[in-house]
Amino acid sequence: MSIPLSIQWTDQQLVILDQQKLPHIIEYIELNTIEDVYDAILKLKVRGAPAIGITAAYGLAIAAQRHEPESLEAFHHYVRKDASYLAESRPTAVNLVWALERLLAAVQQAKTVEEAKALLIDEAVKIHQEDEESCRSIGDYALSLLEGQTRVMTICNAGSIATAKYGTALAPFHLGSERGKTFEVFACETRPVFQGSRLTVWELQQSGVDVTLITDSMAAHTIGAKEIEAIIVGADRIAANGDTANKIGTLNLALLAAAYQIPFYVAAPVSTFDLSIENGKNITIEERHPDEITHIGGEPIAPIGTKVFNPAFDVTPGHLITAIITEKGVILPEYDKNISSLLGAHTGKGETK
Amino acid sequence: MSIPLSIQWTDQQLVILDQQKLPHIIEYIELNTIEDVYDAILKLKVRGAPAIGITAAYGLAIAAQRHEPESLEAFHHYVRKDASYLAESRPTAVNLVWALERLLAAVQQAKTVEEAKALLIDEAVKIHQEDEESCRSIGDYALSLLEGQTRVMTICNAGSIATAKYGTALAPFHLGSERGKTFEVFACETRPVFQGSRLTVWELQQSGVDVTLITDSMAAHTIGAKEIEAIIVGADRIAANGDTANKIGTLNLALLAAAYQIPFYVAAPVSTFDLSIENGKNITIEERHPDEITHIGGEPIAPIGTKVFNPAFDVTPGHLITAIITEKGVILPEYDKNISSLLGAHTGKGETK
Repeated sequence: MSIPLSIQWTDQQLVILDQQKLPHIIEYIELNTIEDVYDAILKLKVRGAPAIGITAAYGLAIAAQRHEPESLEAFHHYVRKDASYLAESRPTAVNLVWALERLLAAVQQAKTVEEAKALLIDEAVKIHQEDEESCRSIGDYALSLLEGQTRVMTICNAGSIATAKYGTALAPFHLGSERGKTFEVFACETRPVFQGSRLTVWELQQSGVDVTLITDSMAAHTIGAKEIEAIIVGADRIAANGDTANKIGTLNLALLAAAYQIPFYVAAPVSTFDLSIENGKNITIEERHPDEITHIGGEPIAPIGTKVFNPAFDVTPGHLITAIITEKGVILPEYDKNISSLLGAHTGKGETK
Repeated sequence: MSIPLSIQWTDQQLVILDQQKLPHIIEYIELNTIEDVYDAILKLKVRGAPAIGITAAYGLAIAAQRHEPESLEAFHHYVRKDASYLAESRPTAVNLVWALERLLAAVQQAKTVEEAKALLIDEAVKIHQEDEESCRSIGDYALSLLEGQTRVMTICNAGSIATAKYGTALAPFHLGSERGKTFEVFACETRPVFQGSRLTVWELQQSGVDVTLITDSMAAHTIGAKEIEAIIVGADRIAANGDTANKIGTLNLALLAAAYQIPFYVAAPVSTFDLSIENGKNITIEERHPDEITHIGGEPIAPIGTKVFNPAFDVTPGHLITAIITEKGVILPEYDKNISSLLGAHTGKGETK
């Protein structure tokens, strides 16, 4: 039993878990070139915003080792070109661009090409380590909130394999497993793309966590029948007032938590907050291809030409969220005040943890 | 455009729609023998409690035409044997036994074998016609409740193909279609068995109703984003206090309706009430095979050996139900009084419609 890792960096070698083959085939693949990394991100072999950012950072660093430029300027030019190339592998992934820019900034300090090459590796490793620390810290805070509660529901995969390690919403279960605290986790299958069945169930099983799969439609009955004590989910984006965009189905669970009067927790790193967005009404919801609903494994399950509404996310209003768990601490309502005060306290120079 | 029928009886010939092949293949099959009928019920080619009852009734009548007994007693013996055989095709289907018993009671009046054979056909036709009338009446009452509302959500398939015609929850949409009233229906796909995608979408399309498919996880977001004005569902069993067992996922919708303050209607014939059950706590929830959740089309979508909770139904408490729509009229809260008073008024001899 061990917590599955999606990214491993050992002896200057990048190895990732091929998430496209989960849960039936557990295959780790070496990424040796920038093209390998581009392809792995494009084809969703690695997924989850933090994991994509980490992989791209290593990809840029790996590519840089091969360059033999005449000058440091020429080297910077190649690295910028590589970064632009990698940034196109998934244009909407904010963490990807953030990680690449962090490497581009770090490399500016180099005085020689050799030093620049080393700095890129160091910075990628640092991003990787920081994400693991951040997730462990989220898990610690979540564990203290879940003190005395064992039966917890989740949706999608805000897990170890979407991050460096531990995940966000799943972090308390993995940490609990390491520390002998037993949870009974109920994982919603998460239609349409089944991240619950395919990823969360597998990941928690690997870690020795007791996990039961249900369909999303069974959430209400299960909360009652199995005496669920809390719900914990991840987040794709959190507005200044606490309104939270996350995988479609999250809002269902938040409303059920309110009806059953159990806590509803959002677990996410501070990088998920977008204070430029005042509230959830200003978050655009991506609508995806109808085939995700009408077809499974390429086979149609609905009449050909069925009209479909396929929003990828929903927005849970802050007033339905009991607490937002970050690596910097737990934020309680009222979010419009408390988010900016926690973020403000931790984004000033020298004040970050 | 026409309302699809699952059962047709013309020129002494029973023809059913093979619902196992929907929505990709629309195939009507003749059932010529009692074995054909047994097989069609067993293999779910016909489904929905009323439709199963009607098909079984015709099956018993068809089989009876072939018997050439020495005496009326011998004939009764054969018919009872046939009824026992058919009753085993789906042991838990209450309507099946109810329909067969109704034929066995009707045939008692016969003075000759020929008369008995005719009586069995007549009674089967009567059951068939009564169910259509009952559904049309439910549709009429539902239409009046939905006056001024166009955007309605439903789950599962409480439809025409589950009954003689029109269905229960879907009756207002079909009737509306006949009468030029336009609805925009949002059909939840209804995991795990996809009755929404496979059956409701197809059925409403056939009838010319504007229908949009969503996953069950999208219900909350869709109610907000598409300004859903009401939710209407069928029922498998209704307790004396209005607590309603129906397809898993119904309770989710009832709680969402309460949160969004939109009406939540249950549509069901009076035969669905079970006054021997005081409240929903006494309704046993069937748990079905894990494969329904872990496999689709025979292919695994979750790790092998995944622990699953697979309840087939949930129970919506009466206090979440705005009204129960029956063929005898609309029942409003308080259900503990109003159900028994409507049923009492209509179950006395000569008082049924």
